[in-house]
Amino acid sequence: MAEKWRIAARRLLSRRILLSHGGGGKETQEIIEYLIRGLVPKEYWRVGDGTGLDLLDDASYIPVDGRNRIAVTVDSYTVDPIIFPGGDIGVLAASGTINDLLVGGARPVAALDAIIVEEGLETETLAYVLNSLINTLVENKVALIGGDFKVVPKGNIDKIAITMTGIGFVMKELRDDAIKPGDKLIVSGPVGSHGAAILSARGTYGLKLDIKSDVKPLTPLMLPLLEKYGDDLRAAGDPTRGGVAMLLNEWARKNGLVIYIDEAEIPVEEEVRAYADVIGVDPLALASEGVAVLAVSPEKAEEILSFIHELGYRDARIIGEARKPKSEKHRGIVIAKTPVGGFRIVEVPSGEIVPRIC
Amino acid sequence: MAEKWRIAARRLLSRRILLSHGGGGKETQEIIEYLIRGLVPKEYWRVGDGTGLDLLDDASYIPVDGRNRIAVTVDSYTVDPIIFPGGDIGVLAASGTINDLLVGGARPVAALDAIIVEEGLETETLAYVLNSLINTLVENKVALIGGDFKVVPKGNIDKIAITMTGIGFVMKELRDDAIKPGDKLIVSGPVGSHGAAILSARGTYGLKLDIKSDVKPLTPLMLPLLEKYGDDLRAAGDPTRGGVAMLLNEWARKNGLVIYIDEAEIPVEEEVRAYADVIGVDPLALASEGVAVLAVSPEKAEEILSFIHELGYRDARIIGEARKPKSEKHRGIVIAKTPVGGFRIVEVPSGEIVPRIC
Repeated sequence: MAEKWRIAARRLLSRRILLSHGGGGKETQEIIEYLIRGLVPKEYWRVGDGTGLDLLDDASYIPVDGRNRIAVTVDSYTVDPIIFPGGDIGVLAASGTINDLLVGGARPVAALDAIIVEEGLETETLAYVLNSLINTLVENKVALIGGDFKVVPKGNIDKIAITMTGIGFVMKELRDDAIKPGDKLIVSGPVGSHGAAILSARGTYGLKLDIKSDVKPLTPLMLPLLEKYGDDLRAAGDPTRGGVAMLLNEWARKNGLVIYIDEAEIPVEEEVRAYADVIGVDPLALASEGVAVLAVSPEKAEEILSFIHELGYRDARIIGEARKPKSEKHRGIVIAKTPVGGFRIVEVPSGEIVPRIC
Repeated sequence: MAEKWRIAARRLLSRRILLSHGGGGKETQEIIEYLIRGLVPKEYWRVGDGTGLDLLDDASYIPVDGRNRIAVTVDSYTVDPIIFPGGDIGVLAASGTINDLLVGGARPVAALDAIIVEEGLETETLAYVLNSLINTLVENKVALIGGDFKVVPKGNIDKIAITMTGIGFVMKELRDDAIKPGDKLIVSGPVGSHGAAILSARGTYGLKLDIKSDVKPLTPLMLPLLEKYGDDLRAAGDPTRGGVAMLLNEWARKNGLVIYIDEAEIPVEEEVRAYADVIGVDPLALASEGVAVLAVSPEKAEEILSFIHELGYRDARIIGEARKPKSEKHRGIVIAKTPVGGFRIVEVPSGEIVPRIC
């Protein structure tokens, strides 16, 4: 009988790991399903009544005693180029970590950074990105309490990779699976700018536009929201790898609902839309790094939207809602009303997603 | 006036990051001092009355409420080769994480893995190391509650890097700075085997011996010790990068004490000693990945040693003690009685430490 890991590997079909396995889409789901969840016994998917591999949310919860729960998140940042219009790998790593905790309903309190550097990187470049990372944490009142620092020989890594761990204290648990039929969906600002900025900066499609990444912490949005409307927020997410398309598909699947959105209502910066058109990519599949998507109770949706506008997020909009599926074939899918009045299924992004976006 | 990060970078002297900056010795201390601690305001070195950049211990503590504290640790694993005699990067990453929590006096409960893979890695190799990682966690009752998975283009990383985050519940805080004059030092088993195994497997010095890494979790040692002798344990550490030499130098420095050790008492496997002799490296500077060094109250030292022997760690020995320095020039140093009866200063390992040992 073949060993467990060998059987798991064969389920992947591909004999070698491809770029698409890391895109955050379908193929990444297969890796997580077969090579991670399939190998971990279920009782080790979480601690006590916390969450973990069962939910695969932005952050996992650990119960510390009867009353307190902490949220933990981990992400690696390998973005190329490491300094890009609107930010750099340091501000990206700090923002991504802070945002994963915030959309999990937690107040970020501490971070740890594990850094792998390629021999020969300019000392000033390292200092520059670390300074960005640290400033972003400190401006958001997050302590840097530890980390790791390794250097590998030239050619063993491209410049630098930063893995961030974030710890937060849970204010209101926001679980991806808590969305109810009728809940309204709010997006806090224009989507897809980070993904477009990185692709454009690389000149991937032979085209460079002046697009700035939207990378920033969502602290000024999420902390007041959690304090004032904690009870009316059902779920929150930041549409990074795979964009809004990926996030909404996950929500539809995890809740067994169908999600309807109105594409005309989804804010996208003009240059981002132009760039996405030219390269033939759906802006909904492009990453954002400073945007939140919220599922809120329908009764309070308009009131919450006004509050978000007052917080300074002027482009925030209600973009759609979650509904009970009319039939089995509607369960777990995302349907968009297109600007010309038709309907289309918003697919889980796959394959073509480019690597090293974040 | 130059910016803060530019000034910080200049303090490093070297214009580019060198392999030695990641060796875990003097040069790594400079990176941490100038580019991390120097850029973070002190009030953000830790959370509340917890620990962090102030202590730079194996694990950091976060106070969750009046009674409970959690321990957090993060480390990147970039070992080359990824499968080596006695283990692989999966068992190494899991063991290293578990051990950092245990020597911090915490019971490990949860882990998260952030994995960066090179495009083209064999799916079976990935499944094999993930299976090792997961089995090691589960055998030690640690849940895997999340992580990240990214693939980067060929040449952007060498095969795989795993960054592990570990979370534990504090049983007894074991801080590096709690050692008192008179405390005895115990080592739980032969040192340097992991470092020697990796170097030998690579044939770095044109010599391959049959040396197995000692990589393993210290759970069967540390949990019973913490339960029975929590009050008599002052500090604990696992001598990974930089080996026992690095660990004891840190302890001497952090406590303002002088540490005396008797080299003849330090257990080293015969092949490891032979290999270290031939390549001209101090076995005390070679990494271990399944060994604990303990500082214990002198009254209970013999009793604790017997207990450790009963737990199955037959090679455990008392190797020396911490003392009040006779003069300022003795403060913070490590002095070894050599097997031939002389004395030598055990230096902080620097420069020559090879990369990708762990």
